[in-house]
Amino acid sequence: MNLVVFAPVGATLALLFAVYFTRIIFKVDEGTDKMKYIANSIRSGANAYLKRQYKGVSYFFIGMFIILFILAQFNFVSIFVPFAFITGGFFSGLSGYLGMKIATNANSRTANACSKSLNSGLKVAFSSGAVMGLVVVGLALLDLSIWYYILNWYYKALPMAERVGYITSSLLTFGMGASSMALFARVGGGIFTKAADVGADLVGKVEIGIPEDDPRNPAVIADNVGDNVGDVAGMGADLYESYVGSIVSSCALAVSAGLSINGVTVPLVVASVGIIASIIGTFFVKSKEDVSQKVLLGALRRGVYFSSIIIAIVSYFIVVNVLGKEHIGVYFAILSGLVAGLLIGFFTEYFTSDHYNPTKSIAKASETGPATVIINGLSVGMLSTACPVIIVSISILVSYICAGGLNNFNQGLYGIAISAVGMLSTLGITLATDAYGPVADNAGGIAEMAGLDKEVRNRTDALDSLGNTTAATGKGFAIGSAALTALAFIAAYKDSIESLAIKNNLDFTFDLSILNPQVLIGIFIGGAVTYAFSAFTMSAVGKAASKIVVEVRRQFKEIKGLMEGKAEPDYAACVDICTKSALHELVKIAAIAVATPIIVGLILGPNGVAGLLCGATVAGFVLAVMMANSGGAWDNAKKYIEAGNFGGKGSEAHKAAVVGDTVGDPFKDTSGPALNILIKLMSVVSIVFGLVVVTFSLF
Amino acid sequence: MNLVVFAPVGATLALLFAVYFTRIIFKVDEGTDKMKYIANSIRSGANAYLKRQYKGVSYFFIGMFIILFILAQFNFVSIFVPFAFITGGFFSGLSGYLGMKIATNANSRTANACSKSLNSGLKVAFSSGAVMGLVVVGLALLDLSIWYYILNWYYKALPMAERVGYITSSLLTFGMGASSMALFARVGGGIFTKAADVGADLVGKVEIGIPEDDPRNPAVIADNVGDNVGDVAGMGADLYESYVGSIVSSCALAVSAGLSINGVTVPLVVASVGIIASIIGTFFVKSKEDVSQKVLLGALRRGVYFSSIIIAIVSYFIVVNVLGKEHIGVYFAILSGLVAGLLIGFFTEYFTSDHYNPTKSIAKASETGPATVIINGLSVGMLSTACPVIIVSISILVSYICAGGLNNFNQGLYGIAISAVGMLSTLGITLATDAYGPVADNAGGIAEMAGLDKEVRNRTDALDSLGNTTAATGKGFAIGSAALTALAFIAAYKDSIESLAIKNNLDFTFDLSILNPQVLIGIFIGGAVTYAFSAFTMSAVGKAASKIVVEVRRQFKEIKGLMEGKAEPDYAACVDICTKSALHELVKIAAIAVATPIIVGLILGPNGVAGLLCGATVAGFVLAVMMANSGGAWDNAKKYIEAGNFGGKGSEAHKAAVVGDTVGDPFKDTSGPALNILIKLMSVVSIVFGLVVVTFSLF
Repeated sequence: MNLVVFAPVGATLALLFAVYFTRIIFKVDEGTDKMKYIANSIRSGANAYLKRQYKGVSYFFIGMFIILFILAQFNFVSIFVPFAFITGGFFSGLSGYLGMKIATNANSRTANACSKSLNSGLKVAFSSGAVMGLVVVGLALLDLSIWYYILNWYYKALPMAERVGYITSSLLTFGMGASSMALFARVGGGIFTKAADVGADLVGKVEIGIPEDDPRNPAVIADNVGDNVGDVAGMGADLYESYVGSIVSSCALAVSAGLSINGVTVPLVVASVGIIASIIGTFFVKSKEDVSQKVLLGALRRGVYFSSIIIAIVSYFIVVNVLGKEHIGVYFAILSGLVAGLLIGFFTEYFTSDHYNPTKSIAKASETGPATVIINGLSVGMLSTACPVIIVSISILVSYICAGGLNNFNQGLYGIAISAVGMLSTLGITLATDAYGPVADNAGGIAEMAGLDKEVRNRTDALDSLGNTTAATGKGFAIGSAALTALAFIAAYKDSIESLAIKNNLDFTFDLSILNPQVLIGIFIGGAVTYAFSAFTMSAVGKAASKIVVEVRRQFKEIKGLMEGKAEPDYAACVDICTKSALHELVKIAAIAVATPIIVGLILGPNGVAGLLCGATVAGFVLAVMMANSGGAWDNAKKYIEAGNFGGKGSEAHKAAVVGDTVGDPFKDTSGPALNILIKLMSVVSIVFGLVVVTFSLF
Repeated sequence: MNLVVFAPVGATLALLFAVYFTRIIFKVDEGTDKMKYIANSIRSGANAYLKRQYKGVSYFFIGMFIILFILAQFNFVSIFVPFAFITGGFFSGLSGYLGMKIATNANSRTANACSKSLNSGLKVAFSSGAVMGLVVVGLALLDLSIWYYILNWYYKALPMAERVGYITSSLLTFGMGASSMALFARVGGGIFTKAADVGADLVGKVEIGIPEDDPRNPAVIADNVGDNVGDVAGMGADLYESYVGSIVSSCALAVSAGLSINGVTVPLVVASVGIIASIIGTFFVKSKEDVSQKVLLGALRRGVYFSSIIIAIVSYFIVVNVLGKEHIGVYFAILSGLVAGLLIGFFTEYFTSDHYNPTKSIAKASETGPATVIINGLSVGMLSTACPVIIVSISILVSYICAGGLNNFNQGLYGIAISAVGMLSTLGITLATDAYGPVADNAGGIAEMAGLDKEVRNRTDALDSLGNTTAATGKGFAIGSAALTALAFIAAYKDSIESLAIKNNLDFTFDLSILNPQVLIGIFIGGAVTYAFSAFTMSAVGKAASKIVVEVRRQFKEIKGLMEGKAEPDYAACVDICTKSALHELVKIAAIAVATPIIVGLILGPNGVAGLLCGATVAGFVLAVMMANSGGAWDNAKKYIEAGNFGGKGSEAHKAAVVGDTVGDPFKDTSGPALNILIKLMSVVSIVFGLVVVTFSLF
């Protein structure tokens, strides 16, 4: 039996359970009229933003489609590429859209459920996360399976070996649509959410001294909209892309590893087992009443652990059955990825949770003002990069050696690629534990604005602060898998260029030595590109936030009775500013990502491109980890102070900590997470435009 | 005639002119008794610190000497290495010591000269910088020449080709002493100076609201001491190391490039021509009375340009004479380095001077508080990395191709190495324009504390703020040359291991492909090491600064009449805290630098080490540029506000800008500049311990 059939089955199951969880959410009442009204404002703001974002993005997709279509006419790319590009983008966008749709319906319901009990609230919020997680993995695997079957049918006349080659090299280019959409969603949403958040905090908390989510703050709706368009829709598209990337890159390397169709089957089947394990895992997530945060975190973790154990067991049988006992090393590669993912999660928690020293030391530094908070937070983030780098390095070494790299280089590379699949196999449930955070955050906002009982807000706060930790864990996960996938992409890039060169009778051989100046310069430029990219995303947030600050100040000055709560602020104005700013900046940022590998390729040739990807992966990996962890630690240091330490809310220390948190916002939710997409988008663009580069490059 | 003789001649000339400039300084009177008293406090603080630092460092040097001596007994290293290690460290330390000695005698004299005229002040301060610059290049070239002649005599029985091989491979390891000392001086001094600066500012400027350099501030003497031990002694040792590194790495690559003794002669002679050109250049630095900052900067620049033109012309004849017309490409490599250095200077000025948009935008962001200042400053720094990376990349490509890399790979590498020599050939004068800054800074402090006329302070401020720009330029320069030198070191590392393997009948061949997991993991670890290293240096500053803050607060609370100026603070206590903190942290930091390449080598083998060096170079380069430029821009944004923009001194915007400046302090003066030393120290350690690694490594 061809086990590939498990892929569409798993995908369908995921989507069915997403429907099941959706129904759970909609059974809960939305609460009071005020809650409904607020939820509706958030929902319509989020919809309005996404509509405009997708409209903007569609120009890019149409433009790229035309370019790819023309290239296809001259045989520079396969004719499937432009269409696959569109479907990748479409499904990625759809994942984000559906996730957001559910999240904006779950927020008020979570708040309402929290007025009953903590466990009810957790159930609703987590169900919303689960929908997100399952939709992402379901649609991703569905898209891949459909294309797999289409290609398999189209090339059916070819002998198996050749057919697999065509299938995988086409599949490989399919990530481009997903990555492009992810970039827009992550960066656009990230700019939106953090501009609103930073702007709202700077005036509301710091200048005027009203609490977070106070309905008098004109940016408060924009802030809540942002949680949905950035942390939900953006993250969904982002992880859709990671997931697709890890699977297609291992499929692509299966051919040169000599594993043929069986090497393609393994990642697809492991992914679908992961989906089923995730579905099972979600049923283990439940909590007793009003327990500590630690117990709550345990509840979420339990689901992830159960899923991981299932995957660890079943993968063994998959590998033995599909590849045979002699390739048992591939199983250990999958396992090493799975374990590495869990370990990265642990260390991320250590560096960002206020139960441990690093975050506490940042809180302590707030006693000597904002400057020491920043210095301390940056150094915590920088130091924290060592752990994931060492973990990923060990994982690379283990999976390379286990998969047989010492005897067969290409099998080793396949091992590295499939370890990324192992790491992301639990995505269905890890994403669920991650995506529930913004829903809880929103629920807290609604509880505050609707004037619900203080007890309700305490419960949503408990859920929310847990969400900070799971979010940081999720990011570590996304970045770690991105590093592994990026390596696989570099290897796949080499394979792809070599086979193109042979097919087109071009005289080209790789020299990927780090002493080859083309490679070296590529590495340097790769390092700088990640920084320039982060600079643009950070400054976009800064610029947009400044506009929000000005607008909020204006409203407090001009709208009479606003401070006293007698007049209503103009929420829509802030939403509008965020939307415009976010979309405005996207053009420049997308241009960097797409143009860099092509320009570098045309000047330095494919060796330079490989160097570029390597440099971007290395510099991007450490920078992204630093940003995510500094940001998470600052956020939790602030929360630690708010819990009554070092003077508590309103103290000078708290004000200093808020500065740290504000700097951390674009770090952890805009620039940092965008880096892993940048790396992979550049990789896929390099592969898609490979023949163009080989044909026209100077070197 | 053997042109190598120019090296000791140039070195001697440099030292003679250093004496000449010293006499100019000492002709000026130290000023009032109060000025003498303050200058003396600073001097004795600086001496006390350096004494303790050298004592601490001597343990390290003795320990390493013993290890190297034992290794030499087993033929793991040449018997010259332990001794060269000591002399490198000694001369590097001596450069720093002499520079500091002069600077602490020139500060009050500059203040006194400024009470006469701006030009007189410039003359004294610049003379002090010139002593520093000439001592550094003089001692460096002297050390190299002495060893060259010793080795040449020792190996005189060998035929020329073999002799040159022995000479250059020994010379190569000599950088280790210089780099070790530079690390201690830069990091120790950097922690001292910034802890004092940050601590003094946080309490003085931000909390209590007294001006900078106010004598009531207990940390003010420590702050001024810091300028001398960090920005003078530290920088001197740092650039000594860069200079030596660039010369020895090109000598080492001369052999494999097939240029033999002539390839060694060129860098030595170009360096000595650079010295003479720098001496001539210093005489072009003079200013009219009380002119604008722009004119003043022009005066300094003129010296650098004249020197550059002389070098550009004379190098042509050197190359043609020594290597012959067929190697004229080497001349263009030198030229490309020279030009790249100047260009990096331009762009650094663009990003850090308040005449341009980037710094102005940071100043503007201060209107919305410290968080936006930080976000904006980080993004300016990140964006600014693109320029030096592109400039260095072009320089690599040009020098590689011109030197014949397309036909002979090793000649291309020699071209890259010698372009670093070209870049640093103007060091005598660029260091002079750089090292005069801290003297002017100190002079301003003394003027303030001694209660001199406001006009005097204005003049010292003019000199000082110019110093900020030249300092940032100098750092860009140091980092750019470090990138080129580091590449040369990687190439030299490969050569060195290969020849060791042949000599010792070891079965080892390099596979430096970026897809080789050993290389790849090495690259990843290299990236993480730079971040961990920066984390340690940053947090060391943060910790030490916190201690200073506590101490300063204590003194203001406990010493009655301090705030009113009736009682004197306990300056020595702050100096003592800084000294202890700085030395305490050095151990951990030195351990990282020395242990990392050895551990990575033992686990991953020489391929892993090459990857490590590559990763550290790339990540370190961009991180160091970012830190230097963010720091410089924050500093000047603050000064821009102090000049009356956005509300001026004492406004909320000013307070926000001070936070940026405070974060920037460890960026630009501790962590950033330490990175280029880290990179090169790891390179030399790798080379010295090469045979140990090849013999005992797992892979």
